[in-house]
Amino acid sequence: MTQRNALVISAHSADFVWRAGGAIALYAERGWNVHILCLSFGERGESAKLWKQPGMTLERVKAARKQESEQAAGILGASISFMDCGDYPLRVNDDALLHIAGVYRELRPEFVLTHSFKDPYNFDHPLANHLAMEARIIAQAHGHTPSVPVLGAPPVFLFEPHQPEQCEWKPQLYLDISTVWDKKYQAFQIMDAQEHLWEYYTRAGLQRGAQAARNSGRKIKYAEAYQTVYPRVTDELL
Amino acid sequence: MTQRNALVISAHSADFVWRAGGAIALYAERGWNVHILCLSFGERGESAKLWKQPGMTLERVKAARKQESEQAAGILGASISFMDCGDYPLRVNDDALLHIAGVYRELRPEFVLTHSFKDPYNFDHPLANHLAMEARIIAQAHGHTPSVPVLGAPPVFLFEPHQPEQCEWKPQLYLDISTVWDKKYQAFQIMDAQEHLWEYYTRAGLQRGAQAARNSGRKIKYAEAYQTVYPRVTDELL
Amino acid sequence: MTQRNALVISAHSADFVWRAGGAIALYAERGWNVHILCLSFGERGESAKLWKQPGMTLERVKAARKQESEQAAGILGASISFMDCGDYPLRVNDDALLHIAGVYRELRPEFVLTHSFKDPYNFDHPLANHLAMEARIIAQAHGHTPSVPVLGAPPVFLFEPHQPEQCEWKPQLYLDISTVWDKKYQAFQIMDAQEHLWEYYTRAGLQRGAQAARNSGRKIKYAEAYQTVYPRVTDELL
Amino acid sequence: MTQRNALVISAHSADFVWRAGGAIALYAERGWNVHILCLSFGERGESAKLWKQPGMTLERVKAARKQESEQAAGILGASISFMDCGDYPLRVNDDALLHIAGVYRELRPEFVLTHSFKDPYNFDHPLANHLAMEARIIAQAHGHTPSVPVLGAPPVFLFEPHQPEQCEWKPQLYLDISTVWDKKYQAFQIMDAQEHLWEYYTRAGLQRGAQAARNSGRKIKYAEAYQTVYPRVTDELL
Amino acid sequence: MTQRNALVISAHSADFVWRAGGAIALYAERGWNVHILCLSFGERGESAKLWKQPGMTLERVKAARKQESEQAAGILGASISFMDCGDYPLRVNDDALLHIAGVYRELRPEFVLTHSFKDPYNFDHPLANHLAMEARIIAQAHGHTPSVPVLGAPPVFLFEPHQPEQCEWKPQLYLDISTVWDKKYQAFQIMDAQEHLWEYYTRAGLQRGAQAARNSGRKIKYAEAYQTVYPRVTDELL
Amino acid sequence: MTQRNALVISAHSADFVWRAGGAIALYAERGWNVHILCLSFGERGESAKLWKQPGMTLERVKAARKQESEQAAGILGASISFMDCGDYPLRVNDDALLHIAGVYRELRPEFVLTHSFKDPYNFDHPLANHLAMEARIIAQAHGHTPSVPVLGAPPVFLFEPHQPEQCEWKPQLYLDISTVWDKKYQAFQIMDAQEHLWEYYTRAGLQRGAQAARNSGRKIKYAEAYQTVYPRVTDELL
Repeated sequence: MTQRNALVISAHSADFVWRAGGAIALYAERGWNVHILCLSFGERGESAKLWKQPGMTLERVKAARKQESEQAAGILGASISFMDCGDYPLRVNDDALLHIAGVYRELRPEFVLTHSFKDPYNFDHPLANHLAMEARIIAQAHGHTPSVPVLGAPPVFLFEPHQPEQCEWKPQLYLDISTVWDKKYQAFQIMDAQEHLWEYYTRAGLQRGAQAARNSGRKIKYAEAYQTVYPRVTDELL
Repeated sequence: MTQRNALVISAHSADFVWRAGGAIALYAERGWNVHILCLSFGERGESAKLWKQPGMTLERVKAARKQESEQAAGILGASISFMDCGDYPLRVNDDALLHIAGVYRELRPEFVLTHSFKDPYNFDHPLANHLAMEARIIAQAHGHTPSVPVLGAPPVFLFEPHQPEQCEWKPQLYLDISTVWDKKYQAFQIMDAQEHLWEYYTRAGLQRGAQAARNSGRKIKYAEAYQTVYPRVTDELL
Repeated sequence: MTQRNALVISAHSADFVWRAGGAIALYAERGWNVHILCLSFGERGESAKLWKQPGMTLERVKAARKQESEQAAGILGASISFMDCGDYPLRVNDDALLHIAGVYRELRPEFVLTHSFKDPYNFDHPLANHLAMEARIIAQAHGHTPSVPVLGAPPVFLFEPHQPEQCEWKPQLYLDISTVWDKKYQAFQIMDAQEHLWEYYTRAGLQRGAQAARNSGRKIKYAEAYQTVYPRVTDELL
Repeated sequence: MTQRNALVISAHSADFVWRAGGAIALYAERGWNVHILCLSFGERGESAKLWKQPGMTLERVKAARKQESEQAAGILGASISFMDCGDYPLRVNDDALLHIAGVYRELRPEFVLTHSFKDPYNFDHPLANHLAMEARIIAQAHGHTPSVPVLGAPPVFLFEPHQPEQCEWKPQLYLDISTVWDKKYQAFQIMDAQEHLWEYYTRAGLQRGAQAARNSGRKIKYAEAYQTVYPRVTDELL
Repeated sequence: MTQRNALVISAHSADFVWRAGGAIALYAERGWNVHILCLSFGERGESAKLWKQPGMTLERVKAARKQESEQAAGILGASISFMDCGDYPLRVNDDALLHIAGVYRELRPEFVLTHSFKDPYNFDHPLANHLAMEARIIAQAHGHTPSVPVLGAPPVFLFEPHQPEQCEWKPQLYLDISTVWDKKYQAFQIMDAQEHLWEYYTRAGLQRGAQAARNSGRKIKYAEAYQTVYPRVTDELL
Repeated sequence: MTQRNALVISAHSADFVWRAGGAIALYAERGWNVHILCLSFGERGESAKLWKQPGMTLERVKAARKQESEQAAGILGASISFMDCGDYPLRVNDDALLHIAGVYRELRPEFVLTHSFKDPYNFDHPLANHLAMEARIIAQAHGHTPSVPVLGAPPVFLFEPHQPEQCEWKPQLYLDISTVWDKKYQAFQIMDAQEHLWEYYTRAGLQRGAQAARNSGRKIKYAEAYQTVYPRVTDELL
């Protein structure tokens, strides 16, 4: 049987846990290879607790964050790699962009998860969105490494930002993650540096679950919400 | 086996042909009962050719339009009913609104097709949208005819208006209708009063088909495009 | 030579002066018949100064406002008529709507000026916009009084509301009214009940003039700004 | 000392509890008269549990909902009145509209709380918004009951709808309600018919509290979020 | 007689043909010098057919595309130049930006045609839009090469992207290109590498023609649609 | 008593005068240290009058603009510094960005004033907005110079662009600057190179004053308008 693949592009090393951990675990359980590409470790901007330790250095923060993310990915059943592009500000040059395009070509994901278009609290997130989308387009171009088949048109889903309305992000798809919630919460607990987020994202999961139930008439406890980028192409309306 | 139902709410008697004929034929072929509810016959505003005949009367226009629509519905495999609410302007009072809610309760459609939110060229279309959505909400209320079970939450899809960008309507779903195109075009040909639209909507079908192909990497010749109203609830991203 | 016509649909009896007086005077000078249709006299909501007079009655306010408007229309060179539909709230039933459609059919205006789509400070203004647009569409329907030729597709321009940004109104056309400014200001002075607006709309004229100059590189002192509703159709880009 | 007043316009009898209970309790504790005007009892559309009781009638549902709302208002420290306009669909004629305008004139509120502009799940809510805003404008018109002083320009705040992003509603003001949370939750518990909402709106209060903290750097546990309608006028930026 | 000039800024070497070929031919026929500035050859991303030839190289693709574009420009009656900035991704540094500003100063175009603000399928297009607009602004600055007169304020028109609604692009001007359609289609046929687009853009021309007819009441067979960027400044509403 | 600080980030050396001079003078009078950070001198794009002098050089323009700005800042009571990053186009590399972040950390402003998100007439303005916001976020990151305490969450207000509606900028806060108008106008008069703007921005101040009065029912002669970026967090609705 052919391996099916999905790609998650995450600005910082923990974003994927809070925002897409359910989708990752769901597809991993179904036998997919879900690959998480972290553009940075969130070493400067999302590691406040670590920086409070005396004598902390950038390298130690990165190492700690990397280890946490690998552990969380393991719990969710996903593979993970890191690009170490820096954060606050994230900066990705064209070589790195072409590397991401190469990941697309190699992995040939059937869907992509990444950040929202806007985020007035975090400029790395929209940049990650831009890179994820630009690299996908580059991977579709016949003139890049013509010997490698071009990418098709995998749909892109934007996971939930921290303050949704401020980011002009709108849920267009609710994914029922009730069956994998335990794994998602277990992955939360690895993120020792951001313990204040455990309950925040548990409540977010319950709110989205209640909304998913209301939009479908089905019993759903936990959900993740996604904005869609491209039109869905289908022969089924439901 | 249980009959599955869908509901199409059309401001005038021919709108469903140009805008949703493919979806109707597709689901009818799959054994669904697709019911078309026409709020008016389009007797004043969409029957120019008939009015050019000498001695034409409102009743004769209505009768002619009704017959055409029944014929077209027959070709597409759908049932049809008419409310005769008038057009240009369409006016639906609360009794009629409750009648539409009653249709929802009785039919229990699994999905609903109707007009766009806005249309600066046609004020009956957005009103039909408003009525379709308000009646759906009323049908969900426990306090209306409490003996009849309330409606669930069927998704609503907005079919393509005549000048899409001017209506702030955006395709979010492409439905591949290639297999039923012949039926759709056959239904076009019934609409004798609007022959200028046959080729317009054939080209529209081909353009949407080409766009659907581009968004999916699949071979698709004809498509219909829909805007979605409510988030999709699912346990599958694809 | 054929008389050319334009139609201005104004919610209250003075709106046309502040918002479109320049366009009216400009076209009147060119020999057009510019007809102003006032849906109300602004008797309740825009006549504060009159209501401060002891013993004032609704009829006397209406009469005073009507007289002012006729005088202002005269200065601008336009004809004017009144529908007396009431204000705050303006309420127009379907008979009145069909009357407006009849005015369109009779006048056959080559362009239409009316209010903005939204105004959170004044609900009569967006209603006037809706009526102006709906009546235009009805006048295009072959099934209304089939013996009278249907209306073509005259462009609609939305004049400037009092607080533009709050109304989500955006200037898309600047009309140079420098040559007729004196007439516009003379018409201001008739509006005795709203003297506080004379300077407000003089400054507005100068600001729009400065913006018009900046957008064109031409010397322009006074301008009126309009939002457009429908696409322009042309064989000239300039 | 002069009594200070605020007005809450609620489509159904319980909306004010979930959406604005904190603001109400906060201002009531400060000695304000907060008056809640319920346009309907939510008797058809928001009383599912009551309708499940055998032999239930519309009048009994209304009575039960009225009693609950009075009790909840009492806990929050507010006065309350009901207009019995019906729900699903809410329908308010011009007499009722003028009654609301009269309430504005009499109460002279310093601020107004009401529903969001849009809600695709509930058409009574945007209608309540429209009525609240239109009545406010009518109350500002000198020509209505000229003997009563006109209303000033109280700011309007839109409380949180059930599915915020779907309603295009955006938080622009976070109100810290931590000190009155107990009262708000106590009021929840009166709403016996909607027990499933207690936890939903507790989580909403915590999420908004966390967001308020993040936007201010202050410790805030519970917050309510509001969208603003008109610009704030001030001589202080903070 | 003074030569009148127009400038078309095209991301890739063929964009101008599909999207603006009619406007170019129309103005060329009227004696204007229409100059097309191609930022790249579309060598990587829009030359799929060429890359399928064995042993193809980047230089050969560029040469082939350049030749095609020159030929198409010739048919349309325009002059053309190329900047070879690369595609997928297009990258234009500040030297190149200043070069474009120089072209503006030298050519002094009376109008500018370029790409849409957004395009989620193609990141080179919005970048070309940004560059075209930024260079125009730089060319207006007195402090750049002060000896050369600054640019005025030529209007900018955005031609139609491949999937209009997805690009949030809206037609605000329809240009009747019926008289030059044959030239436009002849230019299509030069674009051997993109034969699948010939019929797509023929249908687009017919759809825009039908819409132009509907918006004007005139007979129009083929049209191009443009979004406008800046307000029109005029002393004529029509 | 602790010094309270505010930060104004201005793309060019005179922007702060026209757009925020009132807020600056108001807070300076209250004893605040208002610091203006000019990213450039506006030497190329906003010094037309200087460039008309024979033999003018870039350095002399910069010096003249710097002197004017220092004088204007002095009149308003503010401190000022310059980064000399160039204009038309403004270009700020990451070192300069980190410098701005450093200014945030050092100054610890309680509020920030800067440009609008968009401006189709001026690309330096939106870039200044982006930099002001990105530097603020970087200054909040614990991993930058961990020994210096991170920045809190000062609110950001966007001052009025030259053509507000074209910039999609909307006033959400009116600041009454009547008491400091004289200082603002005095600062205008320093801007010798831009005399045409004195009256433009005087009228703008009066228009915003009239709008502020209308939104509050208070007497206000001059106001500045601001768009807000982040939600206000408060325990007072008024």
